[in-house]
Amino acid sequence: MPKMTPQMLEAFIKSDFPEVAHVGYKVSELTDRSITVTIETSESDLRPGGTVSGPTMMSLVDLTMYLLLLAQIGPVALAVTTNLNINFLRKPNPGKLRGEGRLLKLGKSLATGDVSLYSEGVSEPVAHATVTYAIPPAKNT
Amino acid sequence: MPKMTPQMLEAFIKSDFPEVAHVGYKVSELTDRSITVTIETSESDLRPGGTVSGPTMMSLVDLTMYLLLLAQIGPVALAVTTNLNINFLRKPNPGKLRGEGRLLKLGKSLATGDVSLYSEGVSEPVAHATVTYAIPPAKNT
Amino acid sequence: MPKMTPQMLEAFIKSDFPEVAHVGYKVSELTDRSITVTIETSESDLRPGGTVSGPTMMSLVDLTMYLLLLAQIGPVALAVTTNLNINFLRKPNPGKLRGEGRLLKLGKSLATGDVSLYSEGVSEPVAHATVTYAIPPAKNT
Amino acid sequence: MPKMTPQMLEAFIKSDFPEVAHVGYKVSELTDRSITVTIETSESDLRPGGTVSGPTMMSLVDLTMYLLLLAQIGPVALAVTTNLNINFLRKPNPGKLRGEGRLLKLGKSLATGDVSLYSEGVSEPVAHATVTYAIPPAKNT
Repeated sequence: MPKMTPQMLEAFIKSDFPEVAHVGYKVSELTDRSITVTIETSESDLRPGGTVSGPTMMSLVDLTMYLLLLAQIGPVALAVTTNLNINFLRKPNPGKLRGEGRLLKLGKSLATGDVSLYSEGVSEPVAHATVTYAIPPAKNT
Repeated sequence: MPKMTPQMLEAFIKSDFPEVAHVGYKVSELTDRSITVTIETSESDLRPGGTVSGPTMMSLVDLTMYLLLLAQIGPVALAVTTNLNINFLRKPNPGKLRGEGRLLKLGKSLATGDVSLYSEGVSEPVAHATVTYAIPPAKNT
Repeated sequence: MPKMTPQMLEAFIKSDFPEVAHVGYKVSELTDRSITVTIETSESDLRPGGTVSGPTMMSLVDLTMYLLLLAQIGPVALAVTTNLNINFLRKPNPGKLRGEGRLLKLGKSLATGDVSLYSEGVSEPVAHATVTYAIPPAKNT
Repeated sequence: MPKMTPQMLEAFIKSDFPEVAHVGYKVSELTDRSITVTIETSESDLRPGGTVSGPTMMSLVDLTMYLLLLAQIGPVALAVTTNLNINFLRKPNPGKLRGEGRLLKLGKSLATGDVSLYSEGVSEPVAHATVTYAIPPAKNT
C-alpha cells in the first residue's frame, strides 16, 4: 500500500513546491504501481495554434513520476531526476492534460517508470516518457 | 487487423535476415497494437555470472518493434530504427527472453512503441525500452 | 552559412513565441553546426534550495535545438520536437544558464543534435540532452 | 590520469569477456575524459545491403563507455549499464567502426557519457548515444 494518499501528495506540492502549486495538480487512482495526475492547462501553457507546449508536458511527466515515487517511499527523501526520455506523439488540445504513471522498478538507489500523457478529446496518448529518479541513501540516526 | 500473421513474420526473418535467423524468434499474441516475441538465449548471449548480455536484450527490443511495425504496414517498406532508449532494470536469467511490444503511434513517416522484456523466472520486467522507426515514403507507381 | 543571424533568431522568438519572450534568450556563437543560447534564470525557475528546476533546463534544451535548426533551414518551416532525452548531471546555480547546441544530423525530414547545459560558476555541464525535430515537407507552390 | 592503459583494457576484455574477445576491440587515445575504441566489422555484423547492424553499433557504444569508465575507476568494480539512448543518423559502411567516448559525469554511484560512432569512409557520425552506468558501492574491508 502506498505510504501517502492523493491528499497527502497534493498537500506536499503546496507546501514544498510553492512555485508550481498554482498549476493545481490533482492526484487520483494511486496504487503501489501506478498513479494518475491531472492538470488544467492555462494560457501560459499554450503555443501558437492552441497546442500545449513541450515544457508543460515535460513538467507533468516529471511530476507524475515524482509523486508516484514519493507515494511509495514517503516524503522524507530528496529524490532527483537523473534521466528523462520523452517521445512527442500527437498534438495535445488545450484543457485537461493527464499523466498516467507506471512504476517499472523501485530499487534502493534508482527508481524507473514510464508516463503516458493524455489530452482531453484525444483518445491516443499525446506523449510517452520514461523517467529515472535517484534516491539518496537514508541517513542513519 | 495486422497485415501479416506470426507465421509470415517468422518466415520473413528467415528469408530477409538470414544472419539472425538462427536465434529462432517466435512470434505470438499479435494484434493491431501489440506483439510478443520470444527467444531462447544461448551460450553466446550470456555474460560471466550467467546473465543475458545487454546487446542480446537490445537486439530483441529492436526486432520486437520491427516485427510489430511490419505486421501493420506489410513487408514492403524498408523501415529503419532512428531512436532506441533502454532502461536495464533487473538481471535476466539464462533461458527464454520475451519481448512484449506495444504500438504508441503509427504515423506516415514515424512509428513509436515501447517494449518490456521479461526473463524466465523473473516476474517483473528486466528491461524497458522505447523505439522509433522511420518509415520511408511509399513509391508511386 | 546559417540562413538566420542571432538577431533574426531573437526577433523570431519575440514575434512567434510571445509566451516565452520574457525569458530573454540571447543567441551567440552561431555556426553551421553549433549555437549558444543563454538565459538569466529568475525566481520562478528555481526550486527550494536555490537550484534551477528541471522544466527550465528542458525548455532551454528544446529551444537551443530549435534555434539551431531554424538558423539552418530558415523560419519558414514548422518543426516539432519528436524526441528529447536528457541526463541531469549536476546541481545548477541560480543566474545564467547556457545551452551549447551541436547539430549531429540535418536530414530532409529529421534533425538531431545534442545540447550541453552550463551554469554560472559550475565548470562541468549540469545537464546533457539529445533532441530530434521532425521537419515538415516543404509545400510545393 | 587513467588507472588503466589501453593495453590493460584490451587484456581485460580478453580475460573477463571471452565471448566478445573475438571482436578485436582496439583502444586508443585514452585520457581522463575520453577514449577511442575501434572494431573491424565482420560478415556477421552486416545486414542485407552491406550496412552494419544496429546491435553491433549498440554493442560498441556500450563497450566504449564501459572501457572509458573502467579506465578511470579500475577493473575492480562490477559496473552495469542502467540507461542507453541511441540515435541512428547515417548508414555505416562495412569495415572499421570507431567509437569516440566522452565522460560527462563520474559520480560515486552513476557515470554518464556520450559516444559518437564513425564509419570508415563516412565523415559525419553514423550514430550518437548517451550511456549511464551504475557503479556498485565499494566493499569495506
